[in-house]
Amino acid sequence: MRRIRYAMVGGGHGAFIGAVHRMAARLDGRFELVAGALSSDPARAMESAAELGIRPYPDFAAMIAGERGRPDGAECVVIVTPNHAHHAPAKAALEAGLHVICDKPLALTVEEAEDLVAAVRRTGRVFVLTHNYSGYPLVRQARAMVKAGEIGAVRVVQVEYPQDWLATPLEDEGQKQAAWRVDPAQAGLGGSLGDLGTHAFHLAEFVTGLQVESVLADLQTFVAGRRLDDNAHLLLRFSGGARGMLWTSQVAPGNANALRLRIHGERASLDWSQEHPNQLLHAPLGGEAPRILGRGMTALHPAAVHASRLPAGHPEGYLEAFAQIYRDGADQILAHDEGHAPVSASFMTPRVEDGLRGMRFVAAAVASAQAGSAWMAV
Amino acid sequence: MRRIRYAMVGGGHGAFIGAVHRMAARLDGRFELVAGALSSDPARAMESAAELGIRPYPDFAAMIAGERGRPDGAECVVIVTPNHAHHAPAKAALEAGLHVICDKPLALTVEEAEDLVAAVRRTGRVFVLTHNYSGYPLVRQARAMVKAGEIGAVRVVQVEYPQDWLATPLEDEGQKQAAWRVDPAQAGLGGSLGDLGTHAFHLAEFVTGLQVESVLADLQTFVAGRRLDDNAHLLLRFSGGARGMLWTSQVAPGNANALRLRIHGERASLDWSQEHPNQLLHAPLGGEAPRILGRGMTALHPAAVHASRLPAGHPEGYLEAFAQIYRDGADQILAHDEGHAPVSASFMTPRVEDGLRGMRFVAAAVASAQAGSAWMAV
Amino acid sequence: MRRIRYAMVGGGHGAFIGAVHRMAARLDGRFELVAGALSSDPARAMESAAELGIRPYPDFAAMIAGERGRPDGAECVVIVTPNHAHHAPAKAALEAGLHVICDKPLALTVEEAEDLVAAVRRTGRVFVLTHNYSGYPLVRQARAMVKAGEIGAVRVVQVEYPQDWLATPLEDEGQKQAAWRVDPAQAGLGGSLGDLGTHAFHLAEFVTGLQVESVLADLQTFVAGRRLDDNAHLLLRFSGGARGMLWTSQVAPGNANALRLRIHGERASLDWSQEHPNQLLHAPLGGEAPRILGRGMTALHPAAVHASRLPAGHPEGYLEAFAQIYRDGADQILAHDEGHAPVSASFMTPRVEDGLRGMRFVAAAVASAQAGSAWMAV
Amino acid sequence: MRRIRYAMVGGGHGAFIGAVHRMAARLDGRFELVAGALSSDPARAMESAAELGIRPYPDFAAMIAGERGRPDGAECVVIVTPNHAHHAPAKAALEAGLHVICDKPLALTVEEAEDLVAAVRRTGRVFVLTHNYSGYPLVRQARAMVKAGEIGAVRVVQVEYPQDWLATPLEDEGQKQAAWRVDPAQAGLGGSLGDLGTHAFHLAEFVTGLQVESVLADLQTFVAGRRLDDNAHLLLRFSGGARGMLWTSQVAPGNANALRLRIHGERASLDWSQEHPNQLLHAPLGGEAPRILGRGMTALHPAAVHASRLPAGHPEGYLEAFAQIYRDGADQILAHDEGHAPVSASFMTPRVEDGLRGMRFVAAAVASAQAGSAWMAV
Repeated sequence: MRRIRYAMVGGGHGAFIGAVHRMAARLDGRFELVAGALSSDPARAMESAAELGIRPYPDFAAMIAGERGRPDGAECVVIVTPNHAHHAPAKAALEAGLHVICDKPLALTVEEAEDLVAAVRRTGRVFVLTHNYSGYPLVRQARAMVKAGEIGAVRVVQVEYPQDWLATPLEDEGQKQAAWRVDPAQAGLGGSLGDLGTHAFHLAEFVTGLQVESVLADLQTFVAGRRLDDNAHLLLRFSGGARGMLWTSQVAPGNANALRLRIHGERASLDWSQEHPNQLLHAPLGGEAPRILGRGMTALHPAAVHASRLPAGHPEGYLEAFAQIYRDGADQILAHDEGHAPVSASFMTPRVEDGLRGMRFVAAAVASAQAGSAWMAV
Repeated sequence: MRRIRYAMVGGGHGAFIGAVHRMAARLDGRFELVAGALSSDPARAMESAAELGIRPYPDFAAMIAGERGRPDGAECVVIVTPNHAHHAPAKAALEAGLHVICDKPLALTVEEAEDLVAAVRRTGRVFVLTHNYSGYPLVRQARAMVKAGEIGAVRVVQVEYPQDWLATPLEDEGQKQAAWRVDPAQAGLGGSLGDLGTHAFHLAEFVTGLQVESVLADLQTFVAGRRLDDNAHLLLRFSGGARGMLWTSQVAPGNANALRLRIHGERASLDWSQEHPNQLLHAPLGGEAPRILGRGMTALHPAAVHASRLPAGHPEGYLEAFAQIYRDGADQILAHDEGHAPVSASFMTPRVEDGLRGMRFVAAAVASAQAGSAWMAV
Repeated sequence: MRRIRYAMVGGGHGAFIGAVHRMAARLDGRFELVAGALSSDPARAMESAAELGIRPYPDFAAMIAGERGRPDGAECVVIVTPNHAHHAPAKAALEAGLHVICDKPLALTVEEAEDLVAAVRRTGRVFVLTHNYSGYPLVRQARAMVKAGEIGAVRVVQVEYPQDWLATPLEDEGQKQAAWRVDPAQAGLGGSLGDLGTHAFHLAEFVTGLQVESVLADLQTFVAGRRLDDNAHLLLRFSGGARGMLWTSQVAPGNANALRLRIHGERASLDWSQEHPNQLLHAPLGGEAPRILGRGMTALHPAAVHASRLPAGHPEGYLEAFAQIYRDGADQILAHDEGHAPVSASFMTPRVEDGLRGMRFVAAAVASAQAGSAWMAV
Repeated sequence: MRRIRYAMVGGGHGAFIGAVHRMAARLDGRFELVAGALSSDPARAMESAAELGIRPYPDFAAMIAGERGRPDGAECVVIVTPNHAHHAPAKAALEAGLHVICDKPLALTVEEAEDLVAAVRRTGRVFVLTHNYSGYPLVRQARAMVKAGEIGAVRVVQVEYPQDWLATPLEDEGQKQAAWRVDPAQAGLGGSLGDLGTHAFHLAEFVTGLQVESVLADLQTFVAGRRLDDNAHLLLRFSGGARGMLWTSQVAPGNANALRLRIHGERASLDWSQEHPNQLLHAPLGGEAPRILGRGMTALHPAAVHASRLPAGHPEGYLEAFAQIYRDGADQILAHDEGHAPVSASFMTPRVEDGLRGMRFVAAAVASAQAGSAWMAV
């Protein structure tokens, strides 16, 4: 199977998420990194590319122009910049006929997001948004169980995504990851809401198959001097009558990356935690004992089997789930380019439309908080 | 040490909580049950008392009258009836000069609660409200840690109390425990709010030492035909700037009695779950590893040591915590009657004023929901 | 139901296990402590009894003589002394026609144990040995599941009982509990073997329904100056072909009272830990998910229901399990005295014959170690 | 950094461990698969290589000959065949001047293992044995903590590695992975001992830094018709006086791949489980609370940091640990070939000598069992 040639925007020396994308792209051998505009600083961009032994470009425009003309040029652009620098390279890549894999949240504003949705529809390219947590096998198992009616109609959704790394003003110490995340010009309207809330929101919709119709928010900024929320308390109302709560935090000690989703249906509940991703607790009503579904261990839905590489007892983690988004993306790209259909499970990757919903979620939550915690439609 | 003679109202044959109170009262040998008006049905009341070998009475008024005149009469009345039948016997007992131990929530209405506060102040009797979860040693440890500044100023409180036993309309099957809890005439304004929410609310205030200033609620009734909430989503604002979320449910599969409290301060967090009550997770910021504080195991605050009976590794449970409320109540009663001071930790038992706060909490939450999820002062 | 009058030998001021027995006896209201010879020091014995408000005796012989002659005298003697002081009061009580509840291990030597077996048979009194861990509801559930064939024939048993409180020479600091446990004259042949190993051994036989045919031991004494083992590694061979491993330790940091039993059958396994006693993990073969059986929560065997007091989610602990031994003992005593049959589950309490097996187990393990880890018949 | 070209022996279509090695080699981008003799069946070997798009060879001899002559030929041979087919290709590769990465156990017999030790010493090539569990960051943390004296002198080691996939005679159903593992001609002297015991043994020596001096074994074959052990109970005596127990099983329901190591020192214990590899429990003596060390989260030893890729809360798993062995191997190979020193932590990969110890361990255990569970020197 041939490897898809990709070029990266952002992700230079010292960046966390760029390195993650590269490992995820490598794990299954479906991609080959060939070029990069790895920093907004041209010199640093060239240097970082040299380190990686790929074709160096000072910026994304030069990169797209340069790759376009080569027979061995990139077929796909991966975007791992801060939020404010997603829209421009994504749009340019799409318009140059390249597929796009883009980090989340989709963009800086709802308007940018809408523009990208239009661009994807216009160009017909594959667009993959890396809400990577939906790549976990047991998250897909949970989705399949809900869809198959195994827990009955969904009643109550509890989703939370607390972290603690911004409990102190890390941005004042020159920590680059912190600095852009607390800056409205680079991060957008949401602090924890944008960085974590969009993941939590997507996961809740992905697994339940329901849409959040309205949100109500109480937003807080606990660290003095910040302009964006670093903790957010939300109530949710879903299509079909389900209700939920959503909590995100960057200031909750003891939580490294504690995304957790609990779904309570009429007949059973599901409980999944990102930090222990190889288990899914399935608790039926009626006196039956709760069951610990294990990745690889038990008879799982095909969508879960599709997203796993190892037998039970051999833990998979964050990189494997991230790689699943890439592996599914590769299927879609090859199917697109070669005119055949990928396996259907590959279509589970988050799409540009999911990115737009995430942006609307952030905007609605911020509007709710500004209105004194009023219900707002998403 | 002499045993305190007590009489019970409610708690006849088949009642759950009455039997719990009796075991709790027995465990430490500080009380002796001598009389009872154990049912609202006089015949059943007499029968149940005979079964227990105590002085039987057809109703609480007869009991108070009868015990009052005896040299070996009850000194204390324990009330374990449904909510609507707390106020009358409690007031009558206080006015007869008896001490009162009363199950929660305090009463049917805020007005009844206010009347009991006045009666306690007027009579000067000891009044203990059995918010039993505050009797757990590690709950008291958590309170002491917060008070001592060990986690810094409180920022975010997450408290939840889901159950699942009412996920189906059990009340239609003649289950007595279910029937009164879903009946506004017996339960009051709150369904899950009154039965579980008052516990969760009290626990949050007890441990943080803060007061909830306002609440915002989205209430649901998932089981058709019910008139009270069976699921409740609340946002909280505390004095001093802390914020919180509170979830109660009677319809969340997989949750038997899953009260959990998490408190995030500026410097550390605490995490305690009622179903695993012998551990308290203490997670400091700054790269230090989380610590599993164990009941009995580690250097704990005196208030926690005071509430424990066994060394580490010998699990205590629900009855021991409940018994702690009784043991502390006994200290207070003896101190009152003998004119000396009990150990200060004994004063940690919930009081009539805590009961009034619980009633106000329920009323504010219901008003919030009726106003479309507006913030309401407690 | 009338309360059984009991007298206690040992368990004076400051003793741990005596207080535990008293709480266990009180919890269900089936016993009343009336007299005591609470210390081997007569003055201390009198003083301790006065503190408890019971009839004081300077020694067990005086106590048995004194109680025997009274219409309201003790019917039952509870023995909570160190091992070397079990045999004499137990035998005297039996011969005086009193029932006996005795702490474990049964005696100092195999010979003493055999003599007590003979005394019980001769006198026909009820004899209960407080291997209290067999009183846990989920331990009885495990036993019932094995018996019902739910895990298939037993293949592999893993049982361990590590503690850490003797990892340093606590006995040199005047800690009384430590001092007698490391003294062969008071403890017998076994250190951790006698104190913990007899519990683990009993639990393995109790749950599997199998007998250990032979043992092989490697015994260690890690703390300098000790004369008994403080860590023991054993291999087990059971009747019917099952094999096992048994570990006890008093020097294993991080283990407070970490008794754990795992049983692997042809079709499923069971896993129970004393420090989390309200769960029993049941893992079937063949790709089915493991199930978390919960006390009170799920359809359990009658023997487990019999041993529980509270619904699911209301944790029971060490005292409740200990109290179960007392409650079952009360059933047996009343049945004996009133000439009717107790419920059959009450007969699950450990008996004098179990105590003899425990003594033989210790003797065989010590003999094995002395023979360079040879297999020895139990 | 240039990629090291490697060729694979074994690991054709359908093989589990071959695919694992390839993912592990890819994750960090340090290796490039260029050739393969992927099956003992020449036709299948050619076919499998074609599927992977690499240079195909019918057997390892042809492969070594073919690659040797090319400027772009393989520099390293990876061996992922059953045990009996390790020695020949490994020796041939070494003698052809190629580096070797070989799956465990090292060989079929002690003699073969000794011969490979000699070959490595003679040729001076890099030899990496994939005891992959030693690649986990928190395993290296545990080793570093022991070495730094943080738990005091080691007293008691408990190591276990149960699985359940061979609880039924899977080998009779044509399952290829099962078939060779139960066949002495392909697996060697040990069943669970060779497949799992060598891992457990290596892990215990790796982390403690101690050598096992003697073992005592009770071996079982529970599934009828098998000629090798499918369950093994061992006692261990370490240099320096530490003692241990080691359990391996292929017939223990509920255990997928449940390798666990617990080490108890004079001052603290460590507890690590492969199925939850991102946590290491560190329990100090003396009343301090146990600490949950997290990968990435806390101040860890450099050796642990070296072996990790992601921040706390982003779980790493089996493939990352396996990849660490490859990454460290790459460092050693480049250092060897370019004549400079790799970072010292890269030398932690298991070596040919560790493989020889593993073979001696199996032989000693089998001899012990044959002698009726006598102590045997390793």
